[in-house]
Amino acid sequence: MPTRLTNYFLRTLREDPSDAEVISHRLLVRAGYIRRQAPGIFAWLPLGLRVKGKIEAIIRDEMTAAGAHEVHFPALLPREPYEVTGRWEEYGDGLFRLKDRKGADMLLAPTHEEAFTLLVKDLYSSYKDLPLAIYQIQDKYRDEARPRAGLLRGREFTMKDAYTFDYTDAGLDASYQSQRDAYERIFTRLGLEYVIVQADAGAMGGSRSEEFLHPTPVGEDTFVRSAGGYAANVEAFTTLAPPTRSYEHLTPLEVLDTPDTPTIQTLVEVANTKHPRPDGRAWTAADTLKNVVLALTHLDGSREIVVVGLPGDREVDLKRAEVAFAPAEIEPATEADFARHPGLVRGYIGPWSAEGQVLGEDGATGIRYVVDPRVVDGSGWITGANIHGKHVFGLVAGRDFGWDGTVEVAEVLPGDPAPDGSGPVELARGMEIGHVFQLGRKYADALGLKVLDENGKLVTVTMGSYGIGVTRILAIIAENNNDDKGLIWPASVSPFDVHVLAAGREPVVFEVAEELTAALEGAGLDVLLDDRPKVSPGVKFGDAELIGVPKIVIVGRGAADGVVELWDRRTGERTQLPVADAVAALR
Amino acid sequence: MPTRLTNYFLRTLREDPSDAEVISHRLLVRAGYIRRQAPGIFAWLPLGLRVKGKIEAIIRDEMTAAGAHEVHFPALLPREPYEVTGRWEEYGDGLFRLKDRKGADMLLAPTHEEAFTLLVKDLYSSYKDLPLAIYQIQDKYRDEARPRAGLLRGREFTMKDAYTFDYTDAGLDASYQSQRDAYERIFTRLGLEYVIVQADAGAMGGSRSEEFLHPTPVGEDTFVRSAGGYAANVEAFTTLAPPTRSYEHLTPLEVLDTPDTPTIQTLVEVANTKHPRPDGRAWTAADTLKNVVLALTHLDGSREIVVVGLPGDREVDLKRAEVAFAPAEIEPATEADFARHPGLVRGYIGPWSAEGQVLGEDGATGIRYVVDPRVVDGSGWITGANIHGKHVFGLVAGRDFGWDGTVEVAEVLPGDPAPDGSGPVELARGMEIGHVFQLGRKYADALGLKVLDENGKLVTVTMGSYGIGVTRILAIIAENNNDDKGLIWPASVSPFDVHVLAAGREPVVFEVAEELTAALEGAGLDVLLDDRPKVSPGVKFGDAELIGVPKIVIVGRGAADGVVELWDRRTGERTQLPVADAVAALR
Repeated sequence: MPTRLTNYFLRTLREDPSDAEVISHRLLVRAGYIRRQAPGIFAWLPLGLRVKGKIEAIIRDEMTAAGAHEVHFPALLPREPYEVTGRWEEYGDGLFRLKDRKGADMLLAPTHEEAFTLLVKDLYSSYKDLPLAIYQIQDKYRDEARPRAGLLRGREFTMKDAYTFDYTDAGLDASYQSQRDAYERIFTRLGLEYVIVQADAGAMGGSRSEEFLHPTPVGEDTFVRSAGGYAANVEAFTTLAPPTRSYEHLTPLEVLDTPDTPTIQTLVEVANTKHPRPDGRAWTAADTLKNVVLALTHLDGSREIVVVGLPGDREVDLKRAEVAFAPAEIEPATEADFARHPGLVRGYIGPWSAEGQVLGEDGATGIRYVVDPRVVDGSGWITGANIHGKHVFGLVAGRDFGWDGTVEVAEVLPGDPAPDGSGPVELARGMEIGHVFQLGRKYADALGLKVLDENGKLVTVTMGSYGIGVTRILAIIAENNNDDKGLIWPASVSPFDVHVLAAGREPVVFEVAEELTAALEGAGLDVLLDDRPKVSPGVKFGDAELIGVPKIVIVGRGAADGVVELWDRRTGERTQLPVADAVAALR
Repeated sequence: MPTRLTNYFLRTLREDPSDAEVISHRLLVRAGYIRRQAPGIFAWLPLGLRVKGKIEAIIRDEMTAAGAHEVHFPALLPREPYEVTGRWEEYGDGLFRLKDRKGADMLLAPTHEEAFTLLVKDLYSSYKDLPLAIYQIQDKYRDEARPRAGLLRGREFTMKDAYTFDYTDAGLDASYQSQRDAYERIFTRLGLEYVIVQADAGAMGGSRSEEFLHPTPVGEDTFVRSAGGYAANVEAFTTLAPPTRSYEHLTPLEVLDTPDTPTIQTLVEVANTKHPRPDGRAWTAADTLKNVVLALTHLDGSREIVVVGLPGDREVDLKRAEVAFAPAEIEPATEADFARHPGLVRGYIGPWSAEGQVLGEDGATGIRYVVDPRVVDGSGWITGANIHGKHVFGLVAGRDFGWDGTVEVAEVLPGDPAPDGSGPVELARGMEIGHVFQLGRKYADALGLKVLDENGKLVTVTMGSYGIGVTRILAIIAENNNDDKGLIWPASVSPFDVHVLAAGREPVVFEVAEELTAALEGAGLDVLLDDRPKVSPGVKFGDAELIGVPKIVIVGRGAADGVVELWDRRTGERTQLPVADAVAALR
């Protein structure tokens, strides 16, 4: 049965919604696919539900091909398992929490590792039951601080989340690869360009982790890649440390006057003017060691001050720092923090003073001191002397000062070497469309999921977690497939296969449109028939362009002569042909 | 691709779950269809998801046939619209409420009238857009006080809810009939016996309302029906009032001693002993007027005492009383209530005393007094005289006392006359499986949904609401289709069309099972293949009986000779036939 616009639940809008920041949001609302209900929360109208269903069908198909079985978990879950794994706290304000009538704590699940782990624990007990891959397509909840960009970052969204269960590391590797392969097939079928990047495990725990990023300037994620094939989320990029050097031929440090140099830029200028480099080359920001004071809030609520030492030509990348210090939350130190630590001479902070080590576990302040991987034994630096207006020159790491650890918080710059030696990296922006992930034994350990192995020994299960944002993918496809007239869906996810327009007032136009529609449906195609009797051809054309079915048939003036027009929404090309040939041309 | 038990996510259980009160719950858990996550909250395992999908497909099919379009609303919604319609409060503890990170009040929707009304208001503005029927199949939430009986009454459950929009009453009638017809087709296709009963509109507001009840002794609803075709939910039953009588020939009232008669039973005994009826017949409980004191809690929190007068042979039916006094909540008056109203002489309460009217707006106590419809002008009663140990005989309604209104709170008894004159009713129990409902203009009024009519005049839209509990239906089907071995699905919702058992150890058994499975799949049938190599035939038979696919094929000893056995799960009948004929027999 064709869908007829005479009685379809659809209203296309001329105006952009006032809150829409991105194209996909504007067009999906205007073309009648979705409608906002609350910040980051949308209703799905019939057109939108069709596209969503097509995407889900492709995902189901490939999950089945990968041997995964579909289940479905509730969105509303009890607190206890999330308490055991620590995520009840870790999710912070991002978790929707509530109490039931008896006062029991519950949550709207942002992801279901705990529930899947417990389900398998509940039912399975032997290695013979493994490997197991199960998945669901389900609505999830995250209370985003800034729900934005329509479906790209919603507070209620649909995800496919899959989980694999193995009892050996090799098994997990195979399960992981199987899901990873399925993801490649899914994105290919969806016509979505993707880059697989190494990712940080983040709040999910676990080991091997890769993201499927769709490269797009509106993406929220920055990733790096080298011509030699390295690709990583910027949070997962690891710095290639330079070789350590012997101290032997290095000159002793000097404390020098550097008045009015609270910034790296002023310091480099003064250094070049007043204390030129002995070898005649100019000092650069990379020769300086910048010490940034961060305030960490730990899960137990305690606040800790940490100083990070990094080359002066780089800023701290807060996203990388978040990952590096997780699960603690970080922010720049405040005035109050400095007031509590008078030993920190702002603008002139350094790890060393004439009295010896200042920062670090062994230093006078006792403040934790961590450094960028470029700070290696034998590297020499210009850095603050902990005296206002003075810096120390030729301060050698390992010889003159120590540190409590290295940390990956410096921004990654284009041209930085890839850690695998595959050459310099470039930076690009992308949007996460999928994530594959070796959780390892973290959840199984926490929740006690063990099975008996071949030798009758209880072993902890090792898991993988694999997610695709269904509603986000829909938005990204819309984001990439449009023009100034409206949407242009790829055939694989278009709400209909063909959009037939009865463009005219003569009865023959409607007769031919109906006959053609019946013939197309007979050939197994889903047809949207614009049979509105009193709507002008111009409005119908406009609606068709906005809605974005890629293949349009105009039944107009030629109808009486048995001629219709094929209209390719993407190229704009129009071709006249006999109506008798239309089915074959469209099939 | 067949589903193979070698790697399916399934574990059948020998033991009944300890918390399962009803057969459907026990069997759905044991056979691996669902698994409990929290009270009234379940996860769906692959088998369960398949059956649920079949039911949903039938519903979708009939909704499409009824011209309804599918949409999908979020479960998480803002408070405001529910505040406007009053349901934020009315739902009481049954609503899951929560706050987002910004402190905004939100809820998990128990039903979506508000959201659908606002969506249509948002998009439509003309009578030309109507009639409109839209629906969703969606997970809903109600914080039931006593989640019980597995899926029969869950806290998270799947519903199909449809809404129709018209601008005339006749239009609403037609839309209502169309949905009602669709419901009849749905339940027929699901093989579910149903009775359509008149229902009370309850908390939903509105006018015409019918429930589809499935008759079952485990049902929570009581309904009445007459041989003449009347059927109503007991809450919606209306009492046929007797004719009023003239006071003319009635004797005056008498206050008589009735010591130690605080109950109707003691009163009738004492009356017959000490004050026999002048006409020689015995007094019965139906001759007495019982006055029951109820305490109402209104929405604003205020507490009101109400006295209900009803024939002494009937109890107050609390469910009927809940409906009669909604949205106020009711309970029997407490000691504290009586202490506050010393005018009420417990055991001897009545509307009259020697000083005149006691109860009612015009009475000495001022307490609201409402009566059963059987209390009509000219009816005479024995009732309390408001003096300990005394009753008044021959107290005539209308002559000797008045009241503030009539109320349907008395229990319905078998043999009561149907209000439509179709004869005496019988009582039965049922489970609600569907509800169709003329909301009228309640929601459109509250939320301002108007359209321009043919004359360019703004008119308020009139709505209908139509619900089917998908997960409940699944449970009811399971409840009705089982034996002591397990489930027996109707073919229309069975998780698979055929269950093929490879019952033996010889390679030929597995070869034939595989070939037969491929042939069945080729014929378009969904096959569950039990290809577990090391599981005994007995265990396979037991699992097949528990899982309940209605058509089973045993590939066993006869395999080498090309003979298999068809096993009808419902009748238990087994038939041998050549494997070459199996596909034709099963198609």
